[in-house]
Amino acid sequence: MALPVSFSDIEAAATRIQGRAMRTPLIGSPALSEEFAARVFLKPECLQRTGSFKFRGAYNAVMAAGPAARAGVVACSSGNHAQGLAEAARLAGVPATIVMPADAPQVKMQRTRASGARIVTYDRASQDRDEIAAELIAQDGGLLVHPYNDPKVIAGQGTVGLEIAAELAGMRLAPDVVLAPCSGGGLVAGVALAVTERAPPCRVMAVEPEGFDDYARSLAADRIVGNERSSGSVCDALLAPEPGEMSFAINRQKLSGSIAVSDEAALRAVGFAYERFRLVLEPGGAVALAALIDGKVDVRGSVVVIVLSGGNIDDAMLARALAVYRSG
Amino acid sequence: MALPVSFSDIEAAATRIQGRAMRTPLIGSPALSEEFAARVFLKPECLQRTGSFKFRGAYNAVMAAGPAARAGVVACSSGNHAQGLAEAARLAGVPATIVMPADAPQVKMQRTRASGARIVTYDRASQDRDEIAAELIAQDGGLLVHPYNDPKVIAGQGTVGLEIAAELAGMRLAPDVVLAPCSGGGLVAGVALAVTERAPPCRVMAVEPEGFDDYARSLAADRIVGNERSSGSVCDALLAPEPGEMSFAINRQKLSGSIAVSDEAALRAVGFAYERFRLVLEPGGAVALAALIDGKVDVRGSVVVIVLSGGNIDDAMLARALAVYRSG
Repeated sequence: MALPVSFSDIEAAATRIQGRAMRTPLIGSPALSEEFAARVFLKPECLQRTGSFKFRGAYNAVMAAGPAARAGVVACSSGNHAQGLAEAARLAGVPATIVMPADAPQVKMQRTRASGARIVTYDRASQDRDEIAAELIAQDGGLLVHPYNDPKVIAGQGTVGLEIAAELAGMRLAPDVVLAPCSGGGLVAGVALAVTERAPPCRVMAVEPEGFDDYARSLAADRIVGNERSSGSVCDALLAPEPGEMSFAINRQKLSGSIAVSDEAALRAVGFAYERFRLVLEPGGAVALAALIDGKVDVRGSVVVIVLSGGNIDDAMLARALAVYRSG
Repeated sequence: MALPVSFSDIEAAATRIQGRAMRTPLIGSPALSEEFAARVFLKPECLQRTGSFKFRGAYNAVMAAGPAARAGVVACSSGNHAQGLAEAARLAGVPATIVMPADAPQVKMQRTRASGARIVTYDRASQDRDEIAAELIAQDGGLLVHPYNDPKVIAGQGTVGLEIAAELAGMRLAPDVVLAPCSGGGLVAGVALAVTERAPPCRVMAVEPEGFDDYARSLAADRIVGNERSSGSVCDALLAPEPGEMSFAINRQKLSGSIAVSDEAALRAVGFAYERFRLVLEPGGAVALAALIDGKVDVRGSVVVIVLSGGNIDDAMLARALAVYRSG
C-alpha cells in the first residue's frame, strides 16, 4: 500500500520552506565523537524559527493549502506546533487560532501570542481538544492543521532528514543511526522517509519519555496503542495520546525501533547540552541526546545523528535541569 | 613590512585543529535577515569546545610548539583562553598552569580546572599577571602561550574567518561585513586576515565594550593606546589592557573600524540570543550581535556575519541579561 507521504513530497516541502525556515546546521562534535568512539553529529532544531522543528511542517501545510487557508488556520497543540503554526500564519498573512492545554508552559503560550495567534485553553484531563477545534471551525471557518496526522506536516518535518543526508553527503558520509524525539511521530516519520531514501541502510530510532512509550508498544503490537496517561512527564512536547494513523503507517515500515528515557535522563540531557554546547533545549527536545549519553544505543564506530528537536523551556524547568545535571 | 601572521599560517592552523576543534556552523537566519533587510549569518563559537573560539588558537599553539611544550604550558587569562589552553594541553598530554584574576567568573575557573589545569589567582588591580607567569616559568619551566600576542594563536583564531569565507563561498556568497568581538584583538586580526584574502572587499569591524575601546582609540591614533580601567564591565572576556603588538600590526591594516557597545546593549544581546536562538552567550561574546541589533552598523542589502565568540556565563549573569532583555 502506498504510504501517505512520498519522498518527492518532502522535496516539494523543502522548496516551499526555503528562505523562511532556517536550514539548521549539522554540527559535528569532536568531543562527543571521542567520548562515544563514533562520529557524532547534532541537528539543533532549537535554533529553528519558533524554537522547534514544528515551523517546517506548519509553514509547508499553510503554503501548500493556498486559498484553503485564507479564512485562517486552527490547531490543537501543547505549544511547539502552536508557535510554529502561529508564525507560519503570520508570514502567510492569515489568522491563527490555537487550542492549548491550560497547563502548557507559559513561555510557549507567550511566544504563540507574540506571533499574533488567538489562544483557546482547555483542561487536558476533562476536555477533548479535537471537539473544541471542530466547534471553532464550524463557527468561524478555517483550516485544521493537525500537529502530525497530516501529510503536508509530515513532509515538512521530513526536510530535517533531507538536510541531514545532504550535509553528510557533502562530507562523503552517510548516517548509520539517526535518533529523534517522538510524540505523534510526524518528525521521525518524515526523517525516516528522507534518510532511508537517501542513505538506505540507516537505522532511524524514535525516542520517547518513559510512561509515554506508545510508539514502542504500537510497533511491538503492529497496531496503534495509546498511552494510559495524558500528563505527568517533564517532556510536555511528547505527550500525544497515541501514534497518528498516517505517521504510524510510515513508521511501522521505516523505523528500526523506539527507545524510552526517564524524566531524569531527559533533564540531565538538557543540562548536558547547556553546559557542553551552550544550547538551550527543552526536556522533550533532549530525549534523543539522553538516549545517547545514557548509553541506550550502541553507536561505536557509527555515524550517528542526534536530532535536538526543540528549546522552548521555562526558566524554572531549565534551573531544575541544570540542578539535576550538576548534581552528577 | 611583513605582517606577523600570513594567510598560509591560518591554513596550516586549520589543518592542525581539524578533528579536534569543532568546525562551528555558519547559521543563516531568515528571521534576522527579514528584520534587517540583509542576509544575516551567525558564527556561534559558543558551541566550540570549551565554549569559545579560544580553543582554536590555543590548540594550534600547543601543537605547533611540539617538544617546546613538553614541560607544560602557562597562560594569563581571565577565563576563555584559560579553558581553551587547559583543554588543548589535556589533549596534547602536557600540564597547564593558568594565571587567572581572582574575580574571574566562577564558571570559567571550574571549567578550567575540569580540564586538569592548575590555577594561580591574582588581584587584577594590584598585581601584574605577566610577572607572575614569568616567575612560574623561571621556577618550573614551560611555554608561555599569550592569549593574543602570539602568531600561532592569531593564526588559530583566523580559522574562524577561513570557515566563514568557505561556507559562504559554498552558497555562492561572499561576506560584505563581518562583526567580531575584540579585546586584545587576536580574533579580529585572524578573521580579518582570512576574509580579506578570500573575499577582499569585505569590511571587518571590531566590537568593544564602552570604556574599554582601546582598539577604537588606537586605530584613530595609529599607535597602541591602552584602557584607563582594568575592570568594571560585564564583558569580562574583553578587558585586555591594550591591543597586542602583533594583533595591532595586522588590525591597523586590515580592520575597517571599531564600534563600542554599552553593557546594557551587551546584556540585551545575550537575552536576544537566548530567546530567539536558544543559544547561551556571555556578554563579551554577544557584543557583535549587540552592534547589529542596536543599529550601530548599516547592513541593509549586505551579507553580514556576526561572530558570537563565547558562551561561558554564570547563572546569575544570564538571569540578569534575561531580565534586561525581557524588560524591554
